[in-house]
Amino acid sequence: MESGDSRNTWIETLGLAPPSLSDNTADQERLLGALQKRLGGAAVHLDLTLVKALPMLLRRWDYALRCALVRDSDAWRVCGLAGIADPQPLCGLAIDLGTTRIVLSLLNLETGQVLQEDSFDNPQGVIGPDVLTRIHYADDEDGLHHLNRLVVDGLNGMIADLCQRAEIERDRIVLLSLAGNTAMTHLFMGLDPRWIIREPYIPVVNRPGIPLAVRLGLDVAAGARIIIFPNIGSYFGGDLIAGILYSGLDRREGTALLVDVGTNAEVVLGDQNWLIACAGAAGPALESGVSRIGTTARPGAIDQVRIHGVKRCFEIRTIDNAPPVGICGSGVIDLAAQLFASGMIDIQGRFVPSACGARLITTGEDLRLVIAEADTTASGEALTIGQADLDSLIRSKAAMYTILETITEAVGMTPGQLSTFFVAGTFGAFIDPRSAITIGMLPDLPLDSYHPLGNSSLEGAKKVLTQPPSLNRVDRIRDRITYMELNVNQAFMNRFSAAKFLPHTNPELFPSVRIPGPV
Amino acid sequence: MESGDSRNTWIETLGLAPPSLSDNTADQERLLGALQKRLGGAAVHLDLTLVKALPMLLRRWDYALRCALVRDSDAWRVCGLAGIADPQPLCGLAIDLGTTRIVLSLLNLETGQVLQEDSFDNPQGVIGPDVLTRIHYADDEDGLHHLNRLVVDGLNGMIADLCQRAEIERDRIVLLSLAGNTAMTHLFMGLDPRWIIREPYIPVVNRPGIPLAVRLGLDVAAGARIIIFPNIGSYFGGDLIAGILYSGLDRREGTALLVDVGTNAEVVLGDQNWLIACAGAAGPALESGVSRIGTTARPGAIDQVRIHGVKRCFEIRTIDNAPPVGICGSGVIDLAAQLFASGMIDIQGRFVPSACGARLITTGEDLRLVIAEADTTASGEALTIGQADLDSLIRSKAAMYTILETITEAVGMTPGQLSTFFVAGTFGAFIDPRSAITIGMLPDLPLDSYHPLGNSSLEGAKKVLTQPPSLNRVDRIRDRITYMELNVNQAFMNRFSAAKFLPHTNPELFPSVRIPGPV
Repeated sequence: MESGDSRNTWIETLGLAPPSLSDNTADQERLLGALQKRLGGAAVHLDLTLVKALPMLLRRWDYALRCALVRDSDAWRVCGLAGIADPQPLCGLAIDLGTTRIVLSLLNLETGQVLQEDSFDNPQGVIGPDVLTRIHYADDEDGLHHLNRLVVDGLNGMIADLCQRAEIERDRIVLLSLAGNTAMTHLFMGLDPRWIIREPYIPVVNRPGIPLAVRLGLDVAAGARIIIFPNIGSYFGGDLIAGILYSGLDRREGTALLVDVGTNAEVVLGDQNWLIACAGAAGPALESGVSRIGTTARPGAIDQVRIHGVKRCFEIRTIDNAPPVGICGSGVIDLAAQLFASGMIDIQGRFVPSACGARLITTGEDLRLVIAEADTTASGEALTIGQADLDSLIRSKAAMYTILETITEAVGMTPGQLSTFFVAGTFGAFIDPRSAITIGMLPDLPLDSYHPLGNSSLEGAKKVLTQPPSLNRVDRIRDRITYMELNVNQAFMNRFSAAKFLPHTNPELFPSVRIPGPV
Repeated sequence: MESGDSRNTWIETLGLAPPSLSDNTADQERLLGALQKRLGGAAVHLDLTLVKALPMLLRRWDYALRCALVRDSDAWRVCGLAGIADPQPLCGLAIDLGTTRIVLSLLNLETGQVLQEDSFDNPQGVIGPDVLTRIHYADDEDGLHHLNRLVVDGLNGMIADLCQRAEIERDRIVLLSLAGNTAMTHLFMGLDPRWIIREPYIPVVNRPGIPLAVRLGLDVAAGARIIIFPNIGSYFGGDLIAGILYSGLDRREGTALLVDVGTNAEVVLGDQNWLIACAGAAGPALESGVSRIGTTARPGAIDQVRIHGVKRCFEIRTIDNAPPVGICGSGVIDLAAQLFASGMIDIQGRFVPSACGARLITTGEDLRLVIAEADTTASGEALTIGQADLDSLIRSKAAMYTILETITEAVGMTPGQLSTFFVAGTFGAFIDPRSAITIGMLPDLPLDSYHPLGNSSLEGAKKVLTQPPSLNRVDRIRDRITYMELNVNQAFMNRFSAAKFLPHTNPELFPSVRIPGPV
């Protein structure tokens, strides 16, 4: 989202004076002394594993080498070494550790070039799809160990894959970065997450620092270090800090808002002078779609719906144009907006039978609306949505909007006064802002105010690897954010109730949305 | 040797404010924040192993605890935790890692009280008694690994013993210190010592720092750190730095000299303003005695000899009054001094048959002097000394004196101008200065100038555990010492030749020594 400094100062190239009888400084101090001089006198450390290898390497390389370093809070740490003429690059690995999906980006640390990128489902999904189930599973030590092994083994498998495809050795990965929510970060580090979900909601660490990657079980270079993004608390994790870094929210002159939409809605508001954040439960409807036919974004997931003409013909689009298997979060928002715009649901989100016509069927005691006919779907069964599904979506969108109202009000603004609105996360990239506004989930801003960030967690993680000064920003962002505890009091509940209409009980808040009349 | 600050600032007692909804700082940051405040704002780190245990411990201890910390070059590191009411002490362990003998002192870190102390032979002795043999053995990686395992296993065995005797758990040992020569320190850390003995004599590290003890294989608390004394170079190790610390040489107003007598003679000269050091080979005669009957100081070793009256009766004293098994270093010096004073050897150290009488026997082609008759010894064979043994001793004492002359001359002094002379090492504690002066090994100073330090390496190691400010002195000593490479040139060889007489070719240097006339 913003341009950065071009030289990667994580890498230094050195030609050391070889030892002699008149200069018998030890190997370690010879290297560290030269680095310290280069780095302006700051302390520089070399881990024991690198110290052990150093005597042989210095002599093999004739005292000319490339060093990868990372700046910790109080000192520099050497994390990798290579001979001056070694053709293989020193590599970095950025990790977006999602609850559902994990994305890795392998890059050349010396040029910033991405070598390979891929993703896989978080293997902890076998224990439970959501954070809460996993934390309960970690209540006994074996459970914690199991969850930890699942994610670490999964990462190692993917690391091996990426390295093979890029034709580099795993021990060329000398610097890593990882952004995830607080619970995922704890499970990755093997830290007891039990107190995250119990009042007063205390993580084990806020600033995990830059530990040795091998101590966390990763199969990378022995001296490699991993920058783990800090969190603000149990409900505001490193993934969001990475998102702020990537968006540049912390450097803007004008006030902007960043929202990560998922089971939790996490929101940051601010500019170069101040940052305020809050997070609240939005329910599962926005992340994995609605019950029964809800799915994550995968081939066959319906991600766009259009309803045309007086006959209300459905035009659906699926990911990879595969036969429909379900509907993902962005598809549900689209669907609800189109149902509302075409008069098939009313301002309370209830089916309007006269407008729905034959699409509305009775299954047991339920009224359900057919989205895709049986002969078009992957399973051969019709995909339908029920009233309960719509109710769930409306609660989620109302929670989202109420949180936005609450945080803007805290600084004396309204959501409608925002001029820049970043939508983080892969999911955010697929939301049609027009649809989100139509159902009153996002404020009625000009469409060009909305900026999808894509996988901002991964992009933030890549940024600290390729633009060293941005690591200082991570700490500053962490320390500058005022975290506002969402006080779910009567005022909040009143706002929430008002937001449970389409688009809102107060249509003046959504002037661009046409409220359909009765059929 | 000098008094220190009484409070052990390695230990801090804290009562933390428990977390609440209005203060949801993470466990780690809650602890580190309080410590940082206590320590005046310096950075404080907590190792991952302690972080993992922290959530459970803080809640079990109700947020009241004792912390052991150690100050690294740029930050404090928490190395151990205990509940406020926990009756077991947080412990320290000081290690003197000698080439021949290893001494451990287990102490209560909170009071400084020594709980247990014991020693054992360096298990690397099975590979070879001297440093050189071991370094050659480490030339292949398996050899290095083997030597490393020998010493680490030996230490762990003794740690288990000491803990059992003191009735404490091994994981109460949270802070360790280790002083050894450069080669022993390298082998303990698993660092390749190959370049120590090859020109230009380069150690792998000068400042090993304060690593996690478990990473070096020690069975102590998971977060325990070990202060490893730094070296000046391949031939001036941490044991000497520890000795300087213990003697207080670096704080004295008047110039003093410290010498560690062994196979190598290591010498430091200086005061509070300057320190100069050198080291040189003195040969094995001073350490394990002379060939054939030489032995280390153990029960039955002859450590004192007196020759009485005109009949030249021998009165020998052995360690523990056991039947004689051999003669140790201090015994040899005593013996030579007595032989010279009684006229049984001349100023070149050659036997004077007329004075030796029946004690001088012929074995093969050798003339040998009987020290202990066959019917008095442990083996039932007479203990005898040959001309070659005496020649070896004289070369050693001459080397020692020449080194002392060289270093004092470098600062415009003579050995006779020294007013304070520290003799380090267990061996130093047994030398009779009168005898050492008689043979011209030590300068002819008033006897009260000589101060045996005992095991100054161990005492220095204990000092950093019980008197935290002394750790800063360690670094300052390391950085202040000017190491003088002993240039074995013609001037040195001339001095050496002059010193090969008893006490010296120039008797004016030894006015207190009576030169016996011809028999």
